[in-house]
Amino acid sequence: MNDTIKSIATIMKDLDGILLFPHINMDGDTLGSCSALCLALRSMGKKAYVMINEPIPKNLDFLEYGCCTDDDSLLDDVQLSLMIDCNGMNRITGREKAWERGRLKGCIDHHATKAKEIRYDFARIEPKSAAVGEIIYNIIRAMGVEISLEIANCIFAAITTDTGNFQHSNTTSRSHEIAGHLYKIEGFNSKSISALIYDRRSKEAIRLESEVIANLDFYADGKLAVGKVTQELLRQTGTTMDEADGIIQKIMSIDGVEGGCLFKEAENNVRASLRGRSYANMAKAAAAFGGGGHTLAAGCTFHDLDLEEAEKALVPVLIRTIEER
Amino acid sequence: MNDTIKSIATIMKDLDGILLFPHINMDGDTLGSCSALCLALRSMGKKAYVMINEPIPKNLDFLEYGCCTDDDSLLDDVQLSLMIDCNGMNRITGREKAWERGRLKGCIDHHATKAKEIRYDFARIEPKSAAVGEIIYNIIRAMGVEISLEIANCIFAAITTDTGNFQHSNTTSRSHEIAGHLYKIEGFNSKSISALIYDRRSKEAIRLESEVIANLDFYADGKLAVGKVTQELLRQTGTTMDEADGIIQKIMSIDGVEGGCLFKEAENNVRASLRGRSYANMAKAAAAFGGGGHTLAAGCTFHDLDLEEAEKALVPVLIRTIEER
Repeated sequence: MNDTIKSIATIMKDLDGILLFPHINMDGDTLGSCSALCLALRSMGKKAYVMINEPIPKNLDFLEYGCCTDDDSLLDDVQLSLMIDCNGMNRITGREKAWERGRLKGCIDHHATKAKEIRYDFARIEPKSAAVGEIIYNIIRAMGVEISLEIANCIFAAITTDTGNFQHSNTTSRSHEIAGHLYKIEGFNSKSISALIYDRRSKEAIRLESEVIANLDFYADGKLAVGKVTQELLRQTGTTMDEADGIIQKIMSIDGVEGGCLFKEAENNVRASLRGRSYANMAKAAAAFGGGGHTLAAGCTFHDLDLEEAEKALVPVLIRTIEER
Repeated sequence: MNDTIKSIATIMKDLDGILLFPHINMDGDTLGSCSALCLALRSMGKKAYVMINEPIPKNLDFLEYGCCTDDDSLLDDVQLSLMIDCNGMNRITGREKAWERGRLKGCIDHHATKAKEIRYDFARIEPKSAAVGEIIYNIIRAMGVEISLEIANCIFAAITTDTGNFQHSNTTSRSHEIAGHLYKIEGFNSKSISALIYDRRSKEAIRLESEVIANLDFYADGKLAVGKVTQELLRQTGTTMDEADGIIQKIMSIDGVEGGCLFKEAENNVRASLRGRSYANMAKAAAAFGGGGHTLAAGCTFHDLDLEEAEKALVPVLIRTIEER
């Protein structure tokens, strides 16, 4: 029961005082989509903010464009609270009070599962859209707002990050069509955006990745690759655990690897990120240890085992998972 | 003085017995473009081959589609020899005799510099096309050939590799428009293509990269990063020098790095690949040692120095280059 792009555009044109909510653990799609819509609303003379309560990831800092705040008192009257790239209260934790201020509630999302606890005044969920940025692009156009260079940058960042640079299977003809339109905006060039997103990894983070990759263990004739991020390695390389993002993707780019596992040793537990390439049911393997996820991307957490014990417990299960073709 | 897409399509429709020539050191664009055109010509009942005389890079092997041969005697009569993604004899070395067999000579390219030694019967050079695959797509359409799934795979591989997955500054609206069209072909999905291109790196190559990255030297407050691929490291990791491709890109993704240098120690010389991010004139630095290239991508070769000596000679010049803002 989706509202149409046109009806959402019509509603938004009549409102003023709008709070936009990206999901926790912000990514390029949620932040790019929020900023794009915020800039579009402001260009119509409206008051709008993107409500955040966590630092913006460093590689996405340029997407802020003066839109983000943690202070909802900047608006006297909130006519609309709008979730972007999410649709449940557990995705906007810490911002519940600001959310409740909206006289109307809405959501624009592409995640198929819809939370039941909220009664939305309007909602549009497009599971087939690779990025919410694609939906936002359509709404901005339907509101009659010109796509500025800043808006174009936001939309491109949203689409390119959520499609894995147009390589993931969620990419559609529409993703490319919209990107093609962005190139027609004066001054637009993807290079400057992608350099900001991708070419600012710290030397420490790159070194961390290199150390993990250089010390991978292989099992099952090279079909299973297992890496470890220990507290000691974080100390040695001067990094924090969030800088380990992306290492599992690197593991999965190795020829012949069907299953990948990255252990992350935290203060009080050990977390394992699991990936399959084509058939390995990693969700099932994770479930054996109380974890879960999708078939090809899952995870589990060990609370009472140290890293070595967790490895001894999990690796045999992963080998079986991979051999169970 | 470009021939039009339409006139080239008309000429090709009338010919039979066609040899297509990719450039040496084959990449995704030259091979994908050749195979796409070869498949299109064959679908019209014509005899056509892609003439090669070197092994196809492993990550591009799927682009062969039964088109490639090193045996020009498969054709009794060669009505056309056509260079693709190149336009000079020095780009098709070892295949000169096969080239000369063509009664007509043509070239389809996007490199602006045109070789003077060949008198082409027709030529089209589009420096603004990110990939020759884009031009080939237009020619195939102009010949009235339906884009098959195999042709779509070739064209996508050509465009995505030459645009750096739609992130490089050569990408245009047209690159995305064509990619968007490919998605409308039954069965097309970029994921399977990009997994073949990007997710088959050997564990040895990945380890080589990791070792180089983990041992980078930084100069000029982190603005210059210098890595080394020694013969000893190749032995240790069980790799060959061609597996060092891509390491320089990785170096350039490090935050704050304006200039990157990768030394490659060969049997008889030491080669340095040089990259700049935004302003460093690497062509000038390379020229000081008899090398050359573009401002932001250049290289030079040291014949009489060992790696350590080459490093001592080059690094101070690079530091100056980077500080000469």
